[in-house]
Amino acid sequence: MSVLIVGSTALDSIKTPKAENPRLLGGSASHAAVAASFFSPVKLVGVVGEDFPKRYLQLYKRHKIALEGLQVLPGKTFHWSGEYEVNMNNRRTLLTELGVFEAFSPELPAAYQTTPFVLLANIAPALQHHVLDQMRRPKFVVADTMDLWLNIALGDLLKLLKRLDGFVLNDSEARQLTNDDNVFTALKKIHKLGPKYVVIKQGSHGSILSGPRGLFLCPAYPLRAVVDPTGAGDSFVGGMMGCLAAAKGSVEDNIRRAMLYGSVVASFCCEGFGLQRTARLQPAQIEQRVKELREMTRV
Amino acid sequence: MSVLIVGSTALDSIKTPKAENPRLLGGSASHAAVAASFFSPVKLVGVVGEDFPKRYLQLYKRHKIALEGLQVLPGKTFHWSGEYEVNMNNRRTLLTELGVFEAFSPELPAAYQTTPFVLLANIAPALQHHVLDQMRRPKFVVADTMDLWLNIALGDLLKLLKRLDGFVLNDSEARQLTNDDNVFTALKKIHKLGPKYVVIKQGSHGSILSGPRGLFLCPAYPLRAVVDPTGAGDSFVGGMMGCLAAAKGSVEDNIRRAMLYGSVVASFCCEGFGLQRTARLQPAQIEQRVKELREMTRV
Repeated sequence: MSVLIVGSTALDSIKTPKAENPRLLGGSASHAAVAASFFSPVKLVGVVGEDFPKRYLQLYKRHKIALEGLQVLPGKTFHWSGEYEVNMNNRRTLLTELGVFEAFSPELPAAYQTTPFVLLANIAPALQHHVLDQMRRPKFVVADTMDLWLNIALGDLLKLLKRLDGFVLNDSEARQLTNDDNVFTALKKIHKLGPKYVVIKQGSHGSILSGPRGLFLCPAYPLRAVVDPTGAGDSFVGGMMGCLAAAKGSVEDNIRRAMLYGSVVASFCCEGFGLQRTARLQPAQIEQRVKELREMTRV
Repeated sequence: MSVLIVGSTALDSIKTPKAENPRLLGGSASHAAVAASFFSPVKLVGVVGEDFPKRYLQLYKRHKIALEGLQVLPGKTFHWSGEYEVNMNNRRTLLTELGVFEAFSPELPAAYQTTPFVLLANIAPALQHHVLDQMRRPKFVVADTMDLWLNIALGDLLKLLKRLDGFVLNDSEARQLTNDDNVFTALKKIHKLGPKYVVIKQGSHGSILSGPRGLFLCPAYPLRAVVDPTGAGDSFVGGMMGCLAAAKGSVEDNIRRAMLYGSVVASFCCEGFGLQRTARLQPAQIEQRVKELREMTRV
């Protein structure tokens, strides 16, 4: 089955202590879509400006990502610039130019409206609602978010939570949303807001799923060097959704394995700037790391 | 087989945002010994003053901990007082009264010198050396440490590392020792200092073993409330060593399972002040949590 992915499609200028890379392909939907493409057909919904490099369109196409839902509008592509500190954990935004993203309204081609798996990658909750309004009985809907929306669009986000099957957020966002320092009691509080599945991402410490069959502690793949963590969370959830869409059987039966695959794709994402490492990933390399990760958690 | 455990035996006065408990049974050796006692016979080596409450001696005895190596000297028992912040992660020391601990020299009864498993719990590296000097061909020697010794006794500690089979430290100590932010490259550097097995403790994020069969990512048991984390690391390594001493077969075959048991005992430790929860722990409760933890990591 296929996955519809809506989110930001951007140009990222990223500075780390070791290097500086301008105008990389970035955005939540780009990372999630490429990650999902290793497992399932992907339909991308987003917006770019006339300055969007052709080579990035070709990158999407090489991953067989359907682009009928990618609007190209007069103006500039969303441009984000950020800088990481030495430990690669803290980053600060240097610049945000919304460009064509400012007036973005995701409109779904008719053929997209029956896609079974829907990933509402990080984007304003109002736009995530707008996508769901156009969908016809999707099988499994997951949303990601960011601290910005907790700050400026909490009402929209809380309404969205009632429309989701799964919600993915990081640990600091979970603390902010629930006002709870404990990740396990925070999970319980988030379930009460709507979603049956809640995943809390903890970066290099992996992620935690809470669902009908209880908790799953998903490990992160050990990395000896992190080049650029931008997009790792998007890659994780994209890989997870792609894997779920490809699997036979129920979501409940497959979600743990799907998270493991998502975790592995995210690990590759961290090993290159932007999508540079992920984009040249081979399926056998994913399988190899999944195998290693299973071995590292086997008692 | 049995475990010899040397370390501090102390009275801990602990303040958390919710409660204050004076003069609890504490110290690295107390926590490690009680944790190990659920699996194997334990021989404790330490020192207390004449003020050491009889009920704490009885607590050791209830856990069948051999006390021939526990010196009772004129003067006061080592007393530590600390306070935890709201999130229970950061703590600050309010008071340290060394008392009889200041002149402590661990002397091993002759019968102790052939104990197969040796845990050098957190204590000055010079004293850890002194214990090893008295041992005759132990099967498996593990040491724990703390930031204090990295600051004031690094030379002794580096020499100790060459005498160990296993070394256990937490992530901030690993960073300090190796000057490396990445836990996986830090592990490689610590191996080069001597130990075949290195375990880095990451608190609520579990622990990581690096050994001859590669990495093992050991989960922490999910806790919805932490009452007092003091001694959790000592309980972890104590439980691990007790479990290893009890198991048939090689350390390599058993260490992953032993870490899981250590992790579970540490989780109980966090659920009471000092040793209050651990001391009334039943073996069936340990087995139950180990089973749950395995379920939570099963893909």
